[in-house]
Amino acid sequence: MSERPPKNICLMGSTGSIGRQAIDVITGSRNFRIVSMSAHSNTSLFTKQIKKIKPETACITNSEAFKKYGRTTAGPTKIFPPEKLSALCSDKKIDIVLAGSSGSSALIPILDALSKGKTVAIANKEPIVMAGDILCAAAKKHGGKILPVDSEHSAVFQCIENSKAPAEKIYITASGGAILGAGRKKISPEFILAHPVWKMGKKITVDSSTGMNKGLEVIEAHHLFAMDFSKIKVLLHPKALIHGMVEFADGSVSAYLSAPDMRIPISYALNYPQKMKMRNFMDFSNMNLTLEKYPAEKFICFKLALEAGKKGGLYPASLVGANETAVSAFLAKRIPFARIAHIIKKTLSETPDMRYNIPNVLRIEKWAKEYAEKLIK
Amino acid sequence: MSERPPKNICLMGSTGSIGRQAIDVITGSRNFRIVSMSAHSNTSLFTKQIKKIKPETACITNSEAFKKYGRTTAGPTKIFPPEKLSALCSDKKIDIVLAGSSGSSALIPILDALSKGKTVAIANKEPIVMAGDILCAAAKKHGGKILPVDSEHSAVFQCIENSKAPAEKIYITASGGAILGAGRKKISPEFILAHPVWKMGKKITVDSSTGMNKGLEVIEAHHLFAMDFSKIKVLLHPKALIHGMVEFADGSVSAYLSAPDMRIPISYALNYPQKMKMRNFMDFSNMNLTLEKYPAEKFICFKLALEAGKKGGLYPASLVGANETAVSAFLAKRIPFARIAHIIKKTLSETPDMRYNIPNVLRIEKWAKEYAEKLIK
Repeated sequence: MSERPPKNICLMGSTGSIGRQAIDVITGSRNFRIVSMSAHSNTSLFTKQIKKIKPETACITNSEAFKKYGRTTAGPTKIFPPEKLSALCSDKKIDIVLAGSSGSSALIPILDALSKGKTVAIANKEPIVMAGDILCAAAKKHGGKILPVDSEHSAVFQCIENSKAPAEKIYITASGGAILGAGRKKISPEFILAHPVWKMGKKITVDSSTGMNKGLEVIEAHHLFAMDFSKIKVLLHPKALIHGMVEFADGSVSAYLSAPDMRIPISYALNYPQKMKMRNFMDFSNMNLTLEKYPAEKFICFKLALEAGKKGGLYPASLVGANETAVSAFLAKRIPFARIAHIIKKTLSETPDMRYNIPNVLRIEKWAKEYAEKLIK
Repeated sequence: MSERPPKNICLMGSTGSIGRQAIDVITGSRNFRIVSMSAHSNTSLFTKQIKKIKPETACITNSEAFKKYGRTTAGPTKIFPPEKLSALCSDKKIDIVLAGSSGSSALIPILDALSKGKTVAIANKEPIVMAGDILCAAAKKHGGKILPVDSEHSAVFQCIENSKAPAEKIYITASGGAILGAGRKKISPEFILAHPVWKMGKKITVDSSTGMNKGLEVIEAHHLFAMDFSKIKVLLHPKALIHGMVEFADGSVSAYLSAPDMRIPISYALNYPQKMKMRNFMDFSNMNLTLEKYPAEKFICFKLALEAGKKGGLYPASLVGANETAVSAFLAKRIPFARIAHIIKKTLSETPDMRYNIPNVLRIEKWAKEYAEKLIK
């Protein structure tokens, strides 16, 4: 591997949880070079990262943050405003775009990169949830490749990828989130953010506790693996060691296990199809791998996501928009936990009927955010 | 699949547990035709099988049984004596040899089939344990293919096969056998043969309870996967649902699960690389997949097998011979359970030093049987 030239990476969302772990993986390897990177608004961390990594170009995707930052930076890295992100991702020099960003802002850049035939290692669920059909079609048409980074999808991808037999059913696991065993009263942001299994960002930690995250993952799996919703099952697995499984016609099942460490799927997506040496081995000498029925009835947001996914069209975009606003409001203590689902449900039910295309996907997501905000007020 | 001509099968050991289940699989499919079959001494069942299946040729591998049988058979099937088995396996018409036989008698026929470039689906451990190096070299040289049928090896084979990354470590699981939780006093053949997890023959059920079976499997894995003994681990897994796992450099693990039904790996080996529809699906809605340290200290025969495997040369042949005689004596109530290991240990320690080749492998196995028999008397 070391004799090949390093692969050029565009890292979107470098200051987030995935971005920081990706930098860990990338800077520990000679196989990669970060050519460009983006962050949304955490400019103080972004500055440190830029100084250390010295990418050729960087992009700040929040306009306000860009205005401030543009005047203070120095060094060899050129800093660009939000509208330049697509161009950075699609630059001919880039081999792999790692989408560690969150929300929908990476949708167009990802679509553009896939349309240029690039490999997109994608940890950012929303673009696939909102526009999976369009992204997958673009990748297929232009020779682009979508490699999942989410642990569940990386697991299923690996189980499917190399098997000569077709997958009949896929299973993704859920650790259950912070509140599964807890009572529903007085669920504060602080309580939820103490969720112990995965090291994740705030929004996704709340999404895990509401079941939304798992619902979005099912929609994502539906697109990534071209699998009917009826063949995608969720299992409760509190230990978070089995991330995904695939069932074949003969009843046999291929399962993928790893320590709950996002650097493993990040490394796999970047080094695909190689697996690089890492240090997080599992100890099987006393391991209790319990799998249980996923208690969907306790996770209203999971059910809402599945309904939206099955309806398809613009409903997933509406789901994503309403959820983002509702979760922000919960984190800001503007609404109690239980209202998150109510806001999403109401927003979904009022979603206007329009044609399914990229402009309308983004339009509906924006509409849903505004509609949800009105409900909150 | 149904448009291709059926594959021609030579089924060795048709009256044994594997053989009977193989017939289940084969007669339920249009993809196969049993052209020839062999049995050792259960001529009454063999007669029924021949009448139903009507193979072109059949072989009785026990001389005494052949003499009696030769005079009573009828119908279109030609019956041959033991020395003809190799010719049946190597016949140019045969596509796949399924070795469901037990003991060492199939060693030469398997070697001959591999030397003719045939695919050998092998459930019969002893030939690989005794002469793995020679069989694998013959397969490699002549384009033959060894496909494991043992559930553990089929599992590991599939995990390795379906990965582009090399296996760093392999795990095979052990259900623990009949006596793991039981006291050691008064362990009768009847008690052991009530072992509940797998439907197996008597000898292998005893081998499971002594740990010998798992030891033989480790040696088999060493040969089949060209893996150093230090990289082959055994885990205790009482549920017998995870059959094998493979660990990669990044710490991720691929696991193969299926219901404990030998028809699944038999079907896979025959249909390789396809997986045919079967009906034994697992229910993950409440599944406790405990993995534990394998208590090697409780299984003296496991340790003896590993020692013999690591020494290599003719020791595995001596191990196989001594074990076969000791287990027969135990089943005949000539010796108590605990003496099985003593007899094997003593036989191994007295094994003569000779060159490692096929005639000597067979010679040492015979010597070990005789030596063990002397110890029993």
